[in-house]
Amino acid sequence: MDLNADLGEGFGAWQLGDDAALLDLITSANVACGFHAGDAVTMRRVCTRAAERGVAVGAQVGYRDLAGFGRRHIAYAFTDLRDETVYQLGALEAFCRTAGTRVRYLKPHGALYHAAATDEAQAAALVAAVSEYDRDLPVLCLAGSVLAQLATGAGLRVVAEGFADRGYQPNGALVPRTAPGALLTDPAAVAAQAVQLATQGTVTAVDGSTIPCPVESICLHGDTPGAVHAAELVRAALVEAGVGLTSFA
Amino acid sequence: MDLNADLGEGFGAWQLGDDAALLDLITSANVACGFHAGDAVTMRRVCTRAAERGVAVGAQVGYRDLAGFGRRHIAYAFTDLRDETVYQLGALEAFCRTAGTRVRYLKPHGALYHAAATDEAQAAALVAAVSEYDRDLPVLCLAGSVLAQLATGAGLRVVAEGFADRGYQPNGALVPRTAPGALLTDPAAVAAQAVQLATQGTVTAVDGSTIPCPVESICLHGDTPGAVHAAELVRAALVEAGVGLTSFA
Amino acid sequence: MDLNADLGEGFGAWQLGDDAALLDLITSANVACGFHAGDAVTMRRVCTRAAERGVAVGAQVGYRDLAGFGRRHIAYAFTDLRDETVYQLGALEAFCRTAGTRVRYLKPHGALYHAAATDEAQAAALVAAVSEYDRDLPVLCLAGSVLAQLATGAGLRVVAEGFADRGYQPNGALVPRTAPGALLTDPAAVAAQAVQLATQGTVTAVDGSTIPCPVESICLHGDTPGAVHAAELVRAALVEAGVGLTSFA
Amino acid sequence: MDLNADLGEGFGAWQLGDDAALLDLITSANVACGFHAGDAVTMRRVCTRAAERGVAVGAQVGYRDLAGFGRRHIAYAFTDLRDETVYQLGALEAFCRTAGTRVRYLKPHGALYHAAATDEAQAAALVAAVSEYDRDLPVLCLAGSVLAQLATGAGLRVVAEGFADRGYQPNGALVPRTAPGALLTDPAAVAAQAVQLATQGTVTAVDGSTIPCPVESICLHGDTPGAVHAAELVRAALVEAGVGLTSFA
Repeated sequence: MDLNADLGEGFGAWQLGDDAALLDLITSANVACGFHAGDAVTMRRVCTRAAERGVAVGAQVGYRDLAGFGRRHIAYAFTDLRDETVYQLGALEAFCRTAGTRVRYLKPHGALYHAAATDEAQAAALVAAVSEYDRDLPVLCLAGSVLAQLATGAGLRVVAEGFADRGYQPNGALVPRTAPGALLTDPAAVAAQAVQLATQGTVTAVDGSTIPCPVESICLHGDTPGAVHAAELVRAALVEAGVGLTSFA
Repeated sequence: MDLNADLGEGFGAWQLGDDAALLDLITSANVACGFHAGDAVTMRRVCTRAAERGVAVGAQVGYRDLAGFGRRHIAYAFTDLRDETVYQLGALEAFCRTAGTRVRYLKPHGALYHAAATDEAQAAALVAAVSEYDRDLPVLCLAGSVLAQLATGAGLRVVAEGFADRGYQPNGALVPRTAPGALLTDPAAVAAQAVQLATQGTVTAVDGSTIPCPVESICLHGDTPGAVHAAELVRAALVEAGVGLTSFA
Repeated sequence: MDLNADLGEGFGAWQLGDDAALLDLITSANVACGFHAGDAVTMRRVCTRAAERGVAVGAQVGYRDLAGFGRRHIAYAFTDLRDETVYQLGALEAFCRTAGTRVRYLKPHGALYHAAATDEAQAAALVAAVSEYDRDLPVLCLAGSVLAQLATGAGLRVVAEGFADRGYQPNGALVPRTAPGALLTDPAAVAAQAVQLATQGTVTAVDGSTIPCPVESICLHGDTPGAVHAAELVRAALVEAGVGLTSFA
Repeated sequence: MDLNADLGEGFGAWQLGDDAALLDLITSANVACGFHAGDAVTMRRVCTRAAERGVAVGAQVGYRDLAGFGRRHIAYAFTDLRDETVYQLGALEAFCRTAGTRVRYLKPHGALYHAAATDEAQAAALVAAVSEYDRDLPVLCLAGSVLAQLATGAGLRVVAEGFADRGYQPNGALVPRTAPGALLTDPAAVAAQAVQLATQGTVTAVDGSTIPCPVESICLHGDTPGAVHAAELVRAALVEAGVGLTSFA
């Protein structure tokens, strides 16, 4: 099982999250590429440390929106999104190269992650970018999303991710953030869901039913001190359950 | 002899210069990488067309200053400038890759060009970036500049460029823009200086003396309609003089 | 009748449109405030010239999206849009103050113009900004739009604008840009539609029917040389028809 | 005696400093205006809270450099700096207006603060901006700086500030940050220097001599938790020494 998390999300004088702590817990680092967060110095530092620790580096591509942290939907034209994705892939690749590694996958960030799950044009732009840039790059995303479908259709490898701290609906979709049960806050429950995902390939939905949820990666959140601690518990529980942790890439 | 010019200097809805016209005249395109000018869609278009015409693509790296077009000096820290240069190299490389080519050289833009000619820290940052990214990339710059010295010292190839439309001092330096004779405005004189640079490796300084000026590339300007016409005259005069035009890269 | 146009839409080294030519034709200048276009030097210059010519200055507020020129929809939160509108109003006010005048109205730009016509949250954010900043500022927009309704409901003055060069549907809505008849290209037809709007308060829809279209302002476009010429014809036709041209503000 | 500190220096998702804590300690808030830090939502919040607490709001104007946090020198042209200063003054004024107050002074930030202390063109740009915008606005800066001289010469009010936590040279200048004694780290020593500044109008230089240092305001730093605590000690020491704390504005 792979553990992924967002890293390198500071900008200039502003810091966000605890990159160093997360790099000791995860196997795949989604590194921000400067459009919604991240800057050149941060990208270099994260790529270097990730390479030292054997953590795979992925391109966490996002909308060009520092003020909104890539969290607001933008009605991008296909060509703009495709080309800005290529741009971000290349920028991150340069730091991977100086660190002796390379970009190993792509994962969209924030509002782009959500748009690519349902919007055909935006999903297609990501698929076109990866297809042109490097057909061997896996796309890390939600199983069943439009992005997953189009990527698969284009012959790209899709890696499905699950969430240890999010509630699931009986149909396999996440409980919307505004609904009850959207977020698991009990660290023990979060760890248990991670173990179930990793060992059974299932998850217990909010109605109590057990549903299939085959994932190759579990997404951890690290932008609060408490989240880092929860991530440590998840990792410890997985190790204790005998789950081997290694990047999918 | 190589002919280089700045391309891809629009941004979003704003256009600047006539990229298509210049691509028919030059052998090396200095493509803006998004920091002082340029955007992903423009970079892709220029790289694609350059590859089609056999024009070499170079990274025209600049300060992160869209509002100032990279023309105002910024007191960059070494690491910031080194890493932003790596970032820009990588971003442009991605579009070269999708166009079936690669970045062939680096040329600093505007205030960074001038700073790197005299400021050791900024010149060293560019040299460090190229050294880490790809030691085979030539640096296109002013002969005798601090950048040329440091790049040579670091084992990089330096390509010296001359200017067909700028006045030279007897010591080989350019006449400052504020002094008389800084700019040659007579198209015939510009073409003649280009031919002298290409065939004699010399230039006639403002005091009438003939001085050595060995260059591998001549820089053309194209951001005004008149400048494109002047560039056409330069190219025609070089061809007529039997000068072979080909990229140094 | 008032004639309005977008001005000050350059940025740094990049120019767009012919501000000087338009200032001799219009009575109200929608000045870009730096978020989707425009910069401080440009804003000052336009405000100064507008004040000299007796042209009213309005705040052409837009999304924070220089790369997209404010033309792509962004899913703004209410507070972000309200506060960025207040910010833009204040910035423009400062240049009006140094020019001896003041901001006289607000008009949303591009994708915000369209969003505010149908999206209640975005329209409400603009209304909240104007209500807090200066309840005496009119809002220049499309008659019947959600923005017009909410502004009227909040006790703000709404100024409806019409378009001399756009086709109208029988229900009074504009013909979508992708449909036939969206754009009038014959300068004589454009001028005739302007005169009909100004003297009859009606417009001839694409089906030939005459429909009421009571407007206090006509929007001219000026971002191409041809558009400036068309604007001159519109102004000349209105003057010949005896229509008095003066700002609504 | 006035106590001033930098506030509103977050941007989008990124926070910096503890605005709420500082607003309970200071009498003048230097509010970032969006060019080197700060955004519309933050500016509104800080202005509103400052107005509620009777804290004066000043424009902390800076270079247009979010990535560098306004801390790197930029070789601004006079008109660009003058007009961007006017822009920032106006933007902040709008939030003061909605909060029922107004901008009460200007203080340059970071590299602009240092440039304006020695560079005549940049200092003159700030003076021109204030002179045009509102001749009654005081300029908060270093006594004896070029900015102080030009502002005084232009008939503007200059408010000199001192630093409780910085070492002074015998000539009254600050000890450069790279030299020993630049920073006072003992909270008791910091508080004692503040009391001496406020009650004696003097400071003990690094060589032990007592030198005059007449200031109307003391600058507190608040961008670290420890700094907030130090600021609390300074305030408490001043109150205990019977120093009345009130804004100069």
